[in-house]
Amino acid sequence: MTPQRYQRMREMLAKRQPDLTICLEEVHKTHNLSAMIRNCDAVGVHYAHVVWPRNERIRRGTSVGAQNWVRVQGHERIDDAVNAMRAQDMQVLVTHLSDEACDFREIDYTRPTGIIFGQEKYGATEQAIALADQEIVIPMLGMVQSLNVSVASALILYEAQRQREKAGLYDHPRLDETECQRILFEGGHP
Amino acid sequence: MTPQRYQRMREMLAKRQPDLTICLEEVHKTHNLSAMIRNCDAVGVHYAHVVWPRNERIRRGTSVGAQNWVRVQGHERIDDAVNAMRAQDMQVLVTHLSDEACDFREIDYTRPTGIIFGQEKYGATEQAIALADQEIVIPMLGMVQSLNVSVASALILYEAQRQREKAGLYDHPRLDETECQRILFEGGHP
Ligand SMILES: C[S@@+](CC[C@H](N)C(=O)[O-])C[C@H]1O[C@@H](n2cnc3c(N)ncnc32)[C@H](O)[C@@H]1O
Ligand SMILES: C[S@@+](CC[C@H](N)C(=O)[O-])C[C@H]1O[C@@H](n2cnc3c(N)ncnc32)[C@H](O)[C@@H]1O
Repeated sequence: MTPQRYQRMREMLAKRQPDLTICLEEVHKTHNLSAMIRNCDAVGVHYAHVVWPRNERIRRGTSVGAQNWVRVQGHERIDDAVNAMRAQDMQVLVTHLSDEACDFREIDYTRPTGIIFGQEKYGATEQAIALADQEIVIPMLGMVQSLNVSVASALILYEAQRQREKAGLYDHPRLDETECQRILFEGGHP
Repeated sequence: MTPQRYQRMREMLAKRQPDLTICLEEVHKTHNLSAMIRNCDAVGVHYAHVVWPRNERIRRGTSVGAQNWVRVQGHERIDDAVNAMRAQDMQVLVTHLSDEACDFREIDYTRPTGIIFGQEKYGATEQAIALADQEIVIPMLGMVQSLNVSVASALILYEAQRQREKAGLYDHPRLDETECQRILFEGGHP
């Protein structure tokens, strides 16, 4: 590994936010998965959850390399994903186009947070909505009913990034050193 | 047209921002075009520009109906698109991953504004960059080099929406009544 690459990876790792994550519930279009993992990498989300009943894996080569930098954990059921987030004391938010949902900009994302995104056509499941602490929505002022799911994830993650930057959460490394070493090892030998 | 639909369209038209636009320079993937036009509709962008050298048209049925609500003007050359924006006294911004680019959150989007987005693989052309007043970039803290283009457009447009809401630009109708009548007529007879 060149010193430049080592330096670049060290800078990336120093920005990682282990207590911010997303959960993709049956999002299945490759270009959406790819864009969402890129969003994660861009704001420092290091761990992401994917729920696929048949436990498929993200196909290789779909996310312009971002899946090498973001750890994606697969689950067969949404309960398992939510339990994983709860085990880290996260508030669990679910994106849902409902009247109960609050504006995504009103949430405090400096708290440990996991956000559930739903399937392209049907949105998040009833079960996901029941399990979450809070429904959130991105306000829309036009005629179209919903945004693309990767677009929605970017808007929420960059709002979290904005708040966390202001709160100083990017000022000091927060990912544990064992994981950093693992990434440096794997990333140095692609 | 039902009274409910009429009401819904009137509310949409009352939020339209005729002095905020985007220009898609050779963006060609259908799912990106579709997502970008949905983004426009969602924040109240009423007119959008598309540059395609061979002057193709957006294929029908690609944008879940949003192309009925957002007027897309095609241009053969980027100059023509920029001239159209300049004719409306807009500041012209170009998204570009360069060292000269300033953080997208530092821009004042309450001014009449047009934003150029580049092709999926190659980004904005040299010509677009030369014609624009300012380069802007969305900061990325990871290893991946760029965001998906529809994601980038959403982040910038929602920042504009946030600023414009704060400045009261959504409080009163701003689209001229002739255009409103045209949309009401067409939207009532799909
Ligand atoms: C295309 S939408 C699903 C639409 C579905 N018809 C519904 O009513 O839920 C797919 C996913 O994108 C996200 N999404 C889309 N628009 C959103 C918005 N305005 N606010 C929050 N999330 C949104 C959510 O995660 C949603 O589950
Ligand atoms: C995938 S990018 C093009 C990448 C290309 N390799 C380059 O260096 O420009 C396609 C378009 O997405 C937008 N984009 C992607 N990431 C961006 C970012 N971080 N800031 C601003 N615009 C971005 C720009 O409009 C860009 O032209």
